[in-house]
Amino acid sequence: MAAQKPSIPRGMRDFGPLEMQRRNYIFDSIRSVFQLYGYQPIETPSMENLSTLMGKYGEEGDKLLFKVLNSGNYIEKATEESYLDYKKLTSVISEKGLRYDLTVPFARYIVMNRNEIVFPFKRYQIQPVWRADKPQKGRYREFYQCDVDVIGSNSLLNEAELVKVTDVIFNKLGILTIIKINNRKILAGIAEVIGFPEKIIDICIAIDKMDKIGLEKVNTELMEKGLTAKAIEILQPILQLKGNNAEKTDIIRNFLNSSAIGIKGIEEITTVFEYIESIDIKAEVELDLTLARGLNYYTGAIFEVKAKDVQIGSICGGGRYDDLCGIFGMPDTSGVGISFGADRIYDVMAELQLFPKEVETATKVLFINFSEKEISYCLPLATSLRNNGISTEIYPEAAKLKKQFSYADAKKIPFVIIIGEEEMKNDSLKIKDMNSGNEVILQSAELISYFSKML
Amino acid sequence: MAAQKPSIPRGMRDFGPLEMQRRNYIFDSIRSVFQLYGYQPIETPSMENLSTLMGKYGEEGDKLLFKVLNSGNYIEKATEESYLDYKKLTSVISEKGLRYDLTVPFARYIVMNRNEIVFPFKRYQIQPVWRADKPQKGRYREFYQCDVDVIGSNSLLNEAELVKVTDVIFNKLGILTIIKINNRKILAGIAEVIGFPEKIIDICIAIDKMDKIGLEKVNTELMEKGLTAKAIEILQPILQLKGNNAEKTDIIRNFLNSSAIGIKGIEEITTVFEYIESIDIKAEVELDLTLARGLNYYTGAIFEVKAKDVQIGSICGGGRYDDLCGIFGMPDTSGVGISFGADRIYDVMAELQLFPKEVETATKVLFINFSEKEISYCLPLATSLRNNGISTEIYPEAAKLKKQFSYADAKKIPFVIIIGEEEMKNDSLKIKDMNSGNEVILQSAELISYFSKML
Repeated sequence: MAAQKPSIPRGMRDFGPLEMQRRNYIFDSIRSVFQLYGYQPIETPSMENLSTLMGKYGEEGDKLLFKVLNSGNYIEKATEESYLDYKKLTSVISEKGLRYDLTVPFARYIVMNRNEIVFPFKRYQIQPVWRADKPQKGRYREFYQCDVDVIGSNSLLNEAELVKVTDVIFNKLGILTIIKINNRKILAGIAEVIGFPEKIIDICIAIDKMDKIGLEKVNTELMEKGLTAKAIEILQPILQLKGNNAEKTDIIRNFLNSSAIGIKGIEEITTVFEYIESIDIKAEVELDLTLARGLNYYTGAIFEVKAKDVQIGSICGGGRYDDLCGIFGMPDTSGVGISFGADRIYDVMAELQLFPKEVETATKVLFINFSEKEISYCLPLATSLRNNGISTEIYPEAAKLKKQFSYADAKKIPFVIIIGEEEMKNDSLKIKDMNSGNEVILQSAELISYFSKML
Repeated sequence: MAAQKPSIPRGMRDFGPLEMQRRNYIFDSIRSVFQLYGYQPIETPSMENLSTLMGKYGEEGDKLLFKVLNSGNYIEKATEESYLDYKKLTSVISEKGLRYDLTVPFARYIVMNRNEIVFPFKRYQIQPVWRADKPQKGRYREFYQCDVDVIGSNSLLNEAELVKVTDVIFNKLGILTIIKINNRKILAGIAEVIGFPEKIIDICIAIDKMDKIGLEKVNTELMEKGLTAKAIEILQPILQLKGNNAEKTDIIRNFLNSSAIGIKGIEEITTVFEYIESIDIKAEVELDLTLARGLNYYTGAIFEVKAKDVQIGSICGGGRYDDLCGIFGMPDTSGVGISFGADRIYDVMAELQLFPKEVETATKVLFINFSEKEISYCLPLATSLRNNGISTEIYPEAAKLKKQFSYADAKKIPFVIIIGEEEMKNDSLKIKDMNSGNEVILQSAELISYFSKML
C-alpha cells in the first residue's frame, strides 16, 4: 500500500500532552467542586437514536446533527423516490446521530430511569458533543460540555448553590469573574406592564444598547420595533436603571407592582441574593436585565459568567427550566442548571497564564541511563520514589548524555539524578536541579527525605 | 408533538452515578499510575477521515466502522451506478468514521506531530471506541480503551516497566493476576527449528491443548495440520515444557540453539525476567508459549494479564511492534504498549466486590432542612465543611423528615446533621451516624474537628 499523508477532519482537534494536562486540570477542578457539593456523575452514549435528537434543536439544529450510516447494505430499503430528496433518504439510511448537547440525552436518561433516580437529582456530566457547524476560530465540531443540574426541586437554594459552585470553581482556577443574574419572570413582567408581552427580546436588546448608543436612540429604535409612545414612556425607569443590586431591585419591584409574574420574579431574585449574601461569594454578582439567553427555555433564573480580564463571550451560563422531560412524556420535571464552556475557560487561562506550573511538569525526576549495570542500581531507587508518589522516569536507553538532558528539558522535568560508577561505589547519587543548574550529592538513603522537602 | 417513548441504540449504555463512580475509580487508578511512571496523556478526535481508518482492521473491520454521513445534500454527487452498490455509495456520501481503536489514530498523531514529539514518547490515552459489532453480553458498540505505549525506544527496560505498571495498577485495584509473557521471536524460532515457519499459529494452538487433550492427541492433530513426523518429534520438548520460568527458558534456549531469531527471542525474554526480578512484582509472572495475540502485529514481547479469581478472558494485553507508522509514511517507529480493558476490569471488580466503599459514598454529610431560618444558620457550617474538603449537601427543601432521611439512605450519605430551633438557640448541632444510628450533640465550633476524626 502506498503511504498516505494523514490528516484529521475539519473542525476536529488532537490534544497533545501539554494541552491535555491543562485540560485535565480544568476538568478535574470542575469535577472536584461538583463532588464537594454532592453532585453525582452520569454519562450517556455518544450515539442516540435520531428520533431522540431530531426536532429538539430547531430546524438549524437538525441540519447540524452528525448522522451515522446504518450498518450493512443500508441502501436496500431505499426507494427511487428517496434518492431525489436527501432528507427523506437520510431517514431511510440513518437511524443514529451523535450527541448534540448534554441536555436532551439527560432528559431522555431521566425519563428512562425515573424509577431508580433519587430526587432531587444532583447530577453532573462532562462529555464531548458534536455539531456539523462551519468551523472557525474558537468553534469546533467536537467540544466538551460540563453540565451541572438539580432536577426535581423548586427551592431557590439550588440557584444560590449553583452560583456558589461557579464561584468556587473560578476561584480555584484563578479567574476573576462577574456573575450576572436575571429572571425570566421579571422580563415577562416588564413586557406585561408596558402592554407588549411579545416584545421581551426587543426590550432586552434595547437595554443592552443603552451604554453604546444612549437613551434617545434606544427610544427611537423601540418605536421602530412597534412599541407605542406610551409603552416607551412607561419603560423609562427600566432603561435608565442604575445602582447596586438592592437599588435596582427596589426600582424594578416598584415598576412591576401591577404584574403578578413580575412580582414573583423579583421575589425569586431577592431570595437568591439573600442566600448569596450568607455564603461568601468572591465574584461580583450583578443583576443584569439584558441577560436573555435561552429565553424560550428558561422560566426563572438566568445566569451568565464573564471573565473580568479577557475580552471573550460568557464562559459559563444556565438557568431554571420548568419542563425538561415533557418531550419524552414526563411532565413537570423542573430543574436548574449551569454549563461550563471548557474551551473558552482554557483560552482565558492560557491568555492570563493561569495554569499552575506543576500542571505542566508531570514527571518530577529522571534517572540518567549509563548502562544496564547502573540501571539495576537505579531501579529500586526509582521504585521507592514512585512509592512515595513522586512521578519518576528512567531514561530507557544508554543514549548520549546530551540527548538524555534534552529529554528532561523538553519534558520540563525539574530534577535529574546521575548515578555513575563513582556514585555506585559510594552508595551516593548526584541530583541536578534543572532550573537552577545546581547539583547536590546525597547518600541514597537520603533520597526520599530530600524530595519530600523539595517537591 | 406527541410524547415519544425514549430508548437508546442497541449496544450502547447509559452509566448512572454508581457505575460512574466505580468506573472513574478504575480510570483514576490507571491514570495515576501511568503518570507516576512519566506517561503523558493525549486525545485524538472521535471522528477520523475514513481514509485513515479503512483497510487498517481487515475487511471485517471495515464493515464494523461506524460511518458518518456527509453534511448538506450529500447525495448530489452520487451517480445512479453507485446506488446499486452500497460500498461504492458509502465512499460518495461518507468521508468520516468513528474511531475503531486507539492505535491507528495514535499512529496518525505521531506522523502528523513527529517534529514536536519528544522521543522516546511515553503516552497514554483513555477514550471510547466504537464498533458496529453484533451486541451481546459483555460486548458493546461503544467502550473505553486505556492504552499506554513507549514509542521510539528499543530498550527492554520498557517491557519491564510496562509489566511493573500493570502490576502496580492491579495491586491498587485489589485484583490478583497472572501476567503471561511470550515473545514472537521465540515462536518464530520454534517454527524455524522444526522447518515449518508458516505453522506458528497451529503450534501455539497445539501447546494450548496439551492440558485438555494430552500429548498423544496433540501429536495427531499436528500431523493432520500437515507437520511431518520428524517435525513433531523435534517439537516434543516444547510440547512437554514444564517448570518455572528459568527451567522453561533453559529448555527453550537449548531447543532454539540453531535459530538466530529464536536465540534473540530467548535473550529478550531473559533480560525482561531479570529486570522484573529487581523491581518487586507482586503478580505471578509466567512464560507462556501459547500467547499468540496480535501475532501479525507484534514482533517481540507479547503480554496478557488474567485475573486469578474470576473466569473471564484477559483483562489486559499488549506487546512490541516494529512498525507502527509505516502505513502513514513514517518507517521504523518501534514501540511497546499495553491496553487495559476497562469493562472487563469492572466486571472482575464487581464480581469480587473490590470497589472500596468510599467510592460509592460521594457525599459525606447532609444537613436536614427545617425551614429557611435554619438553613441560613446551616449555610456557613456547610461552607466550612466543604472548605475542609468534606463533600456536603443541604437538602434543598423543607420536606418531610422521612423523605430527607430516605434521600440520605439512597445516596448512602453516612452522616446527617440536624439543626432545629433548640440547636440554633444553643449554638449546637445533632449528628446522626446513619450506619450505627447513634446520635451525638456538638457545639458548632467542634464540627470540623469531629469530622477530621470520623472521615
